[in-house]
Amino acid sequence: MNKKILFSLLCWVTLSCLPGLVFGQGRPAPPVVVSPEVHADNKVTFRFLAPSAKEVKLSAQFDKAPVPMTKEANGIWSVTVGPVKPDMYPYSFVVDGISVADPKNTAIFPNEGFQNSMVEITGSTPLIHTVQNVPHGTLSYRYYHSKELGTRPVVVYTPPGYEKETTKQYPVLYLLHGSSDTEETWTKVGRANIILDNLIAQDKAKPMVIVMPYGRAYPKISKDAGSLRNWDNLQEFKKDFLTYLMPFVEQNYRVKKDKDSRAIAGFSGGGGETLYLGLNNPELFSWVCGFAPGMLKEEFDRNNAVAFANPAKMNQQLKLFWIGVGKEDFLHPVIMDYRKILDEKKIKHEFLLSEGGHTWMNCKLYLTTIAQKLFK
Amino acid sequence: MNKKILFSLLCWVTLSCLPGLVFGQGRPAPPVVVSPEVHADNKVTFRFLAPSAKEVKLSAQFDKAPVPMTKEANGIWSVTVGPVKPDMYPYSFVVDGISVADPKNTAIFPNEGFQNSMVEITGSTPLIHTVQNVPHGTLSYRYYHSKELGTRPVVVYTPPGYEKETTKQYPVLYLLHGSSDTEETWTKVGRANIILDNLIAQDKAKPMVIVMPYGRAYPKISKDAGSLRNWDNLQEFKKDFLTYLMPFVEQNYRVKKDKDSRAIAGFSGGGGETLYLGLNNPELFSWVCGFAPGMLKEEFDRNNAVAFANPAKMNQQLKLFWIGVGKEDFLHPVIMDYRKILDEKKIKHEFLLSEGGHTWMNCKLYLTTIAQKLFK
Repeated sequence: MNKKILFSLLCWVTLSCLPGLVFGQGRPAPPVVVSPEVHADNKVTFRFLAPSAKEVKLSAQFDKAPVPMTKEANGIWSVTVGPVKPDMYPYSFVVDGISVADPKNTAIFPNEGFQNSMVEITGSTPLIHTVQNVPHGTLSYRYYHSKELGTRPVVVYTPPGYEKETTKQYPVLYLLHGSSDTEETWTKVGRANIILDNLIAQDKAKPMVIVMPYGRAYPKISKDAGSLRNWDNLQEFKKDFLTYLMPFVEQNYRVKKDKDSRAIAGFSGGGGETLYLGLNNPELFSWVCGFAPGMLKEEFDRNNAVAFANPAKMNQQLKLFWIGVGKEDFLHPVIMDYRKILDEKKIKHEFLLSEGGHTWMNCKLYLTTIAQKLFK
Repeated sequence: MNKKILFSLLCWVTLSCLPGLVFGQGRPAPPVVVSPEVHADNKVTFRFLAPSAKEVKLSAQFDKAPVPMTKEANGIWSVTVGPVKPDMYPYSFVVDGISVADPKNTAIFPNEGFQNSMVEITGSTPLIHTVQNVPHGTLSYRYYHSKELGTRPVVVYTPPGYEKETTKQYPVLYLLHGSSDTEETWTKVGRANIILDNLIAQDKAKPMVIVMPYGRAYPKISKDAGSLRNWDNLQEFKKDFLTYLMPFVEQNYRVKKDKDSRAIAGFSGGGGETLYLGLNNPELFSWVCGFAPGMLKEEFDRNNAVAFANPAKMNQQLKLFWIGVGKEDFLHPVIMDYRKILDEKKIKHEFLLSEGGHTWMNCKLYLTTIAQKLFK
């Protein structure tokens, strides 16, 4: 607890004793703020307490541009928007030009570059990422040790029943986050665990272990050093991945160790890492999936050194090479250029062109899509 | 990713191609912001990008009052403070009167009422909550299902070796958070898992399972309905705890089921829950620990109905009844009144009067203290 909660605790003690009493030096207790409030008709009300602010806007990924909020007499700014298409969206408040997360919402977007909150509009039918009353897997926060990088965090999903079926071996998906994301983003924003719980309950995906590491070779590569797929990070992360992460996973989880039981997928900068690691190591991964993978044209060759050297062999080695991108994604043009080269070289791949842009709404769609293909 | 990261990705693509090029419509790329930066001498520099703000202050729990920050020409506000006593502290920036978390810091204080960031000053010697290269336990994010409250989150710590020693049974500590905290606060702010990893490595604590549930009976009791230990929440949470949580834990983890292997502890509002649940159910818990437990005088009786009815029996039933509070804690007076009554009734208890106030720095101290006493 900090000073602010101490303040509210004082209110709580005071108000518990003497309801209606004003607080402290004649100052009234601050008004109760509920935000976000999702209504039955899929409209959403956002609220933010800022008595002294001059302008507050809502910046949400379901809107093209920030929406002005209106100040009430009690200092609460609010706006009701929608109906919003059911999904889970990042948003923030822009308070006199400063972007801030919603202090009343514990659903936070884990990211090293900004702070957003998450709002979920479920609608009348549960979505594939909606928490439902089905058997749930376990999400484990673990550490592994690297001589070069120290203690490293990794989040591991094990499917429902994993703890009880003590001899069963599972296939494993390594799932990489975007450039300024963390090892928590794939679950807190991408709902990877809930998507798999639901797909497994519907018998649409094979039970699998999902390994979500931290994709930056920090502290060797500082957090402000740009994309994950910068060359120096790529070399350090590759070493970390192959030398420490994979052995940790294979020693501590009941995962199958053949290439056909091992997949790698990633988003944006982590999609660049995925292509570089996956396509260049077909003896390790039979399944390689890029979710709006981040790359520049001059990275095509390095990501495909093995594939371009022998396309026919690559086609035979990979069970799935999958790429997805949104029509409005800023990476759409470079990915279409990349696909042209893959076609010229006759490298087989599946492609999904989705609506929308470079978003985690699309990430959830891509994971849902490939999870139904993997290990089958 | 959201619009802001899309913006930075655009910078990244642009800058990767043509270093030094200005961004977009002649606008320079935003400056790199690193915050917080902990120096070798335990001073800390905080930075916040806000070109248009009029006043930015640092509000950190190692300072009594907010400290003004200074704006540089590039729009970055900064301040260097300290040397700061090594510990892990909550902080926020106060930007023109609005409190915001540090957007460059992924260490967030999980809380329903405010948003703070966490800064760790390690100093020259690792502290008991410092991540070290020792065997680490597993932190599992699980769900259990309640007929009344739906799907409920719980975080469970299992000690190092738990997965491999497949027949060993462990004692269990139920550990409750403060009033507007969440099931993640005891690990992300209280470092309960790391404290236990280190104490176990030093052979100072018995390996134990720690169960950290969400302490509010949401959605029956709304998040804005004040303290956890309000009567209605207490009744719903008690039902949830006894009917669903404990059976879930005992069916899914190798925990011992006798009262001497079961402890309960909690902070603030969760300390109130702890006394109510623990002292009134001595057939379930032999170890009851209140960390600055939240209560009003009129709650003394309800929390101690069983104890006051037969103090001698309570003394015989409990192996440890422990209370800790800080000298500057606003709950210090009420807890001293409570202790007087315990002494009058001859109810045995251990007491720790610490420095400082109603803070998570003290929570870490209290957990470190009791973890060395439990199950011995």
